[in-house]
This record gives sequence, C-alpha cells and structure tokens, in this order.
Amino acid sequence: MRYLSQIFQPVLTIPKDAIIKNTEITCKSQKLLLECGLVRPTGSGLFTILPLARRVLNKLEALVIRCIEEAGAQRMSLPSLTAARLWEKTGRLQDVGAELMKVEDRHGKKYILSPTHEEAVADLLADVGPLSYKQLPLLLYQISNKYRDEPRPKHGLLRSREFSMLDAYGAHASPECAKETYERVTNAYRKLFQTLELPIYRVAAPSGAMGGSLSHEWQLLADAGEDTLQLCPECKSAMRSEQDSSRQCVRCASEMQLVNSIEVGHTFVLGARYSEPLRAHYAAVDAASTPLHMSCYGIGITRLLAASVEALANDKALRWPEAIAPYRVLIIGPKEGSKEWAVHGWEEVQGLGEELENEAGLYSDVVLDDRHTHTIGRRMKAADRMGYPIIVVCGRSTTEQPPRYELYRSKRVGYSAPVLLTRAELLATLATEANVTKVEVNPKEICAAESS
Amino acid sequence: MRYLSQIFQPVLTIPKDAIIKNTEITCKSQKLLLECGLVRPTGSGLFTILPLARRVLNKLEALVIRCIEEAGAQRMSLPSLTAARLWEKTGRLQDVGAELMKVEDRHGKKYILSPTHEEAVADLLADVGPLSYKQLPLLLYQISNKYRDEPRPKHGLLRSREFSMLDAYGAHASPECAKETYERVTNAYRKLFQTLELPIYRVAAPSGAMGGSLSHEWQLLADAGEDTLQLCPECKSAMRSEQDSSRQCVRCASEMQLVNSIEVGHTFVLGARYSEPLRAHYAAVDAASTPLHMSCYGIGITRLLAASVEALANDKALRWPEAIAPYRVLIIGPKEGSKEWAVHGWEEVQGLGEELENEAGLYSDVVLDDRHTHTIGRRMKAADRMGYPIIVVCGRSTTEQPPRYELYRSKRVGYSAPVLLTRAELLATLATEANVTKVEVNPKEICAAESS
Repeated sequence: MRYLSQIFQPVLTIPKDAIIKNTEITCKSQKLLLECGLVRPTGSGLFTILPLARRVLNKLEALVIRCIEEAGAQRMSLPSLTAARLWEKTGRLQDVGAELMKVEDRHGKKYILSPTHEEAVADLLADVGPLSYKQLPLLLYQISNKYRDEPRPKHGLLRSREFSMLDAYGAHASPECAKETYERVTNAYRKLFQTLELPIYRVAAPSGAMGGSLSHEWQLLADAGEDTLQLCPECKSAMRSEQDSSRQCVRCASEMQLVNSIEVGHTFVLGARYSEPLRAHYAAVDAASTPLHMSCYGIGITRLLAASVEALANDKALRWPEAIAPYRVLIIGPKEGSKEWAVHGWEEVQGLGEELENEAGLYSDVVLDDRHTHTIGRRMKAADRMGYPIIVVCGRSTTEQPPRYELYRSKRVGYSAPVLLTRAELLATLATEANVTKVEVNPKEICAAESS
Repeated sequence: MRYLSQIFQPVLTIPKDAIIKNTEITCKSQKLLLECGLVRPTGSGLFTILPLARRVLNKLEALVIRCIEEAGAQRMSLPSLTAARLWEKTGRLQDVGAELMKVEDRHGKKYILSPTHEEAVADLLADVGPLSYKQLPLLLYQISNKYRDEPRPKHGLLRSREFSMLDAYGAHASPECAKETYERVTNAYRKLFQTLELPIYRVAAPSGAMGGSLSHEWQLLADAGEDTLQLCPECKSAMRSEQDSSRQCVRCASEMQLVNSIEVGHTFVLGARYSEPLRAHYAAVDAASTPLHMSCYGIGITRLLAASVEALANDKALRWPEAIAPYRVLIIGPKEGSKEWAVHGWEEVQGLGEELENEAGLYSDVVLDDRHTHTIGRRMKAADRMGYPIIVVCGRSTTEQPPRYELYRSKRVGYSAPVLLTRAELLATLATEANVTKVEVNPKEICAAESS
C-alpha cells in the first residue's frame, strides 16, 4: 500500500498565461498534468513522466498488450536507431525528412530516431526471409519511444517530440489475408477503447505519407483536438471533415455536427509499399518469391493519456477512465485529535487499506492520505483535483456501531453524494468492481455505427 | 497457450567464422541467440529482440521492478534526449563525449541520446526544488533504452550501442541517509540475482567517470567476460583484479583464482557531484539551501539476458534461469499416426497444456510442440537447443492405464533421465514449483562473502 506523502508529486501553481520552459500552456491536459505533479517538461516537446503518470502508462500498456496479443500479435523490440539508407530506399527520407531526428555515429554512418518502423520491419522480414506462406499471417508489435522533430511542439503530451507508441506490423500472403488481420486488430482497438470508456470513433482516412490502400483514424472527441469530424447526433456516424460546413448524414439524413477530435490511433493496409523496395518476400505455394502484403497499426500511448484528460477532466480537476486512474481508491482518515480519530485512528485506517488491497482484490491500487493533520474537507478538495475514481472517507459514522464508511464516486464535476456502508458492504462492493474483467465485453457494442 | 509453429523464431545456421552484418561472432551468447532465432542484428551494435527473447526481457523487467519497488523506488520515465548543455555543466560532455550519440534538432539545439541520466535527474530535482528535507529520501527509477557510441561494438548484446537498462537515482539529506538507501538497493540486487540463480559477485570499484565516494560493481562469472576478478575458492571473497597474477585471500589466506566476469550492475554513492553544478538543492531543517546527496544504480537488462546465456549455456544449447526462461514448460506429444497418437492424440495433448496453464498455475508459460509429423526424438533434440527448463513428453507410457508422462529437467548438458508421473502427479509437482515465490528468499544467503 502506498502513502500519499511518500509519492513524488511536485505540484505547481501556474500563473495565467505562463510560459514554462519555452512552452506556452495551450490546453487543459498540459495545464492539469503539470499543476498536479504528473508530468514535467524538460525542454520543448520533451517531458519527464512522473510516478503518478507512469502508473497510468503502466496500466495503459498492460491493456494495450492484452488486447493486441488476443489478436495474435507477438511482442518484439526494434532499435530506435534505424539506418537512414532504409528510409532512402522507400523515398521517405526525402518525403518526411524535416520531421526526422537524425544521428550520425563516430564513423559517419547515418541513422534516424524512428517515428515509425515500416522500413525496419520490412528489412527484418527481408533478412530472415523469404518466409514460407505457411508461416503467414504474422503479426509483430512493440511498445517503445518514438521521435518526431515537430517544428512547433505544443499542447504538452498531445504533440511531443519523444513519445511512447504501440506499433504493430502484419505480414501476409494475400490482400484478403491482410484484410482479415486488419479486422482482427480493429476489434482489438474496439475492446481497448471500450475498456477505457472514451468517446473514440473510427473514421475512414487517406493513407497519406504511409502509402497503401485502406486506412482508418481513431479519433477521440475533445475540444482541444486539432482535427475536425462530422458527427451524426442520431446514428453516431462519423467522418473526417476537411471543410467548415456540416453536411447531411448519408445514413439517416440528420444534420451532422462539427466536432473537434484528437487522433489516438491509426490502422493501415500497406500492400507492397515497403516490402517491394526493401525486398521483403515470401515463398508462395508455387515457390515463387513475392513481396509480402503488409499492414500496420499505431496507438499513441502518451498521447492517449493526455487525450483522456482532455475528454474527461473539468477545468480545474483531473478525471480518469477507471481502468487507468493512477490509483482507483483513495482513503481519507479522520483528522488527528478528532473524536473520530480516537475511535477509528491510524491503525484502523491502515487496516481498512490492507483489507481493500488484499481481500477486495484492489492490490496496489489503494492509496492512503496520511496527511492527517489536515481536515477531511481540505484533503477531499485536493483529492477532487486528482480525480480518484473512488474516495472512501472515515468520517463521523465510523463512531457508530458497526462503523460505517462514506463512499464517494467521481463525477465530471465534483463527487457523488456519499453512500454509507459498513466495512463488509464496502469490501463486497469494491470486490465486485475489482473482479469485473472489463476487457471481455462485446466489441460490437462500441463504434456500432461508423463510416467504413 | 502458445503453439511452437506459431512463434516467430527465424533460426539460422551460422557457418564457422561467419561475419553477420559486419559483426564478427565472438562469443557463445551472440552465436546461440542468433542461431536459435531470439535476436537479429540490424547493424553494428544494434539488435532486434525477437519474440522469445522479448519474453525473457519481460520477465527480467518484472523481477527488477518488483525488487527495486520493494526497496521503495518509484517508477518514472525521463526522455532519452537530454539537452547537451546539462552535460556541459557537469563536464561530462568533454570527458565521455566520444561515446555519446548526438542529435541536433531542426533549430540547431543540441541533445545527447543518454547513456545514463544523472544530469537529467539532478536537473529535474533542481526544477521542482528545493525539496524539503521531509520529502527525503527519494528513490526514482526507470527502465529504458540507453545509448553508447562504442568504437567497436562486439559480443552481441553484451556490448551493444542501444540497450535496455534499469537506472535508479537516490536523493538524500545526508551521506548517512544516502548510505542507507545504498544498502536497501544492495539488498534488492541480491534478491534479484538470487532469484536468477546466477553466480554474481559484488566487488568494490573505483568511481571512475561517475564521480562520488563509494561504488560497487556486480560481476557475473563467465568465460566471455572482459573483466577479471580474484575469487577465493574457499570463502568466496571476490575483488577486481587489475593485474595478471593471483593473490592470497585477505580473509582466509587461500590462493585466489583469476576468473573472467561480466559487469551486469553498478551501484554508486555520488555525493554532490551532480547536484552541485546543476543546483539540485534541498531545504534543510534550518531552511538552508544545500546540494542533495545523490546515489545511482544501474542494471543492464539486455546485457543480463546475454550474460545469463554465457554463464549457463553449453557450446551447442541455450540454458536459462528458470525464472526468465522464454517458456518454463514444453509439451511434446506423440508422432502423428503412432500407436500412442491413437490413444493420446492432439486433443489430449492440448488438454494437458490447458491443465498445466490453468490448474498448475503456469499461465502463459507453457508451449506446445505442434509439429507432430516429426518424431519425438527430433523434437527433443530441437527442444534441448532451446533449453526449456522442463519438457513433458507424452510417450509410450501414455498408453498405460492410468497414462503416465515423462518429465525431463534441463541440465548443463542435455536433460535429466525422465521421471514417469501420472497426470495428477505431474500437475501437483509443477503446481508446487509454480507457487514458489522465489523472490522472497533470504537475501543474506547470497553473496555472503564478498569484499567490503
């Protein structure tokens, strides 16, 4: 169990219109994550992830891994340094050169700090190939830091220069097989985003710098977003909007709404765009050497953290999807020296924390506010700002027989009215919630209506 | 459960004296990891970690995290890109400049790809500071890729240019407090290395380029090691050896032996070496602003993987510490069409795998050799090369009533003679082993005798 006073969380008060280390504060997530001590900029577009935000990333990564492995993906790790010559072969060194961070080693050999790894994966498949058609389909993924030399990094973690990303790569013997993997990964994305309970829509997208034949963006609705969607308020159809005026929904003829959104994921069928120039071939049934049909998939992990804050937080306080909150439960004990403290003091509060962790199954997800020289009210106010999904207060009713606890749940603004529960009821309630395996919901329930 | 045929494991036959992508094969781990399809070089000193090796790293990371968090450390993430000006301030840009990978962004600002983060952490603590003495001690860690522009990368993962490392940093109000954290982390290292069952010795070391007052190296005995230790065969005292002749043990007067070793970890008390130039101060009891006393700790994660292969493998086959083997158990079923296959066919083999995973608690740690057109002998030979700690063969005795299974355990060379067990006995045996929480052994049992 963790004690609040021991967590490294350097809070900060940011004056209005402040500029922090050459970075203007331009959005809610940037301001709140900095003020609440979750993130710290180290320079333009570069951030230290502090322990509370690191816990969010741990949970996000675990969910992403579970979903993508259920889709059959195998984890690997590619070096961040990719030989520049590979990007020359595909033409991307010229096309996106200005956005690449470049490194030259002591012998003058040129590398890039990869923003994505299509070239590296195609080169790997060429190196170990030709694979037999029997070894296909193959789906490989990694989670690693990616780099982009943004001309003007802004919005904090939403557009940084070093960021954590899931990237997955499919290799196939036919376009049909590539499409099947694409559908499988699409379902994995849906499960993930449903678990996160975030308003994320899949929209058809042009393939752009990646090349290929089929592509979707996964867009989270949020005011701070730099993208715009047309969203049907009736049937929830969504599409990218390149224009400023709204249109009529092609499905239900309702007037569509223009909404801002943040791209948190992308999926592509790539065809032979990379396998051909890099000679990543497979041996077909007739033994003919043929370029692999590739697909690729990305989810911005650090961006998703910030985007979820944009979507859920209010102007003054963080809010989290329950599955990735830094801690799910905060316990606030009585103020030292109070009447309640005499009956239900520090030992009882600790005992409650241990029971929640070990008996209710909230292992390592409970934090105790041990600043018990402060009033309960003052600690509640600070807790509101952090947005713990559940707060348990040991207040006046802990002096009753049997003692009862106040259970609060986070709302968009503030917390629900408290529910008074005995210790047994509290444990049973939270145990039930801890045991709900949220990933295993029906993926068809989310994004049911969307543009293909 | 995983099927062997679905694992991406591009095996390779390396001719003697081969040069792979400009890299000479110079040691056992490099050769075996490449031949067995666990690792693939992408260039000089750069490697793709393939799925089986990635599983080893996942397990290693989980063990490292458990041990360092038990010592009170909190996880964070620093950017790999560190502003070069911080390294200028401490003088290290000049001192170790040639080994640094350098990056210049589109605005001409200079960064390094960090090999270690003392400067970045001191800058962070200065930025959020001055911390109050009440917030100390503080112990922060990360696991991330580090970079070193080696003049001649060699020995595969033992000396690569991009590698995964745990690095932890302590901040303290006094040298005594720094020493206490140092002891706590030392115990965490001991627990970790005991869990891995590797012959690792702690030896006093000069502080070198890091500065500071106290330092130890953690050295694993292995022929391929570039370091040399004096090791007492009697009392197991160990010390660094800068000379070629062996000495007398200062403890028990035995003749010490010269042995090769690989540095897998390092621990330092740094004092104010970084906090002073970077102004990382704390507010003491009398409110005086004072440079923090720092300490730092490193474990090479990818290096430890390769080093454990150097220590345990034989010339032709991998061997693993049980805690980090890619899979703990391989199941080999009968050959298709055999008499055994008729009685104990594919469904029974799968059922056994599922019972081992779900009932014996070996969840996701069992792999099935589904190449059942091959003989059992041929599959045993391939399995020997991979070094699974346990192999279960469904052979002739599965036709008995009740059916019995052959349990083999890996030895340094080959496997133990089989033990014949009924299904219930097999499940009970492996369940007991799966439940042993190896991390919670007495740390004093390891490295009992060592230099200071």
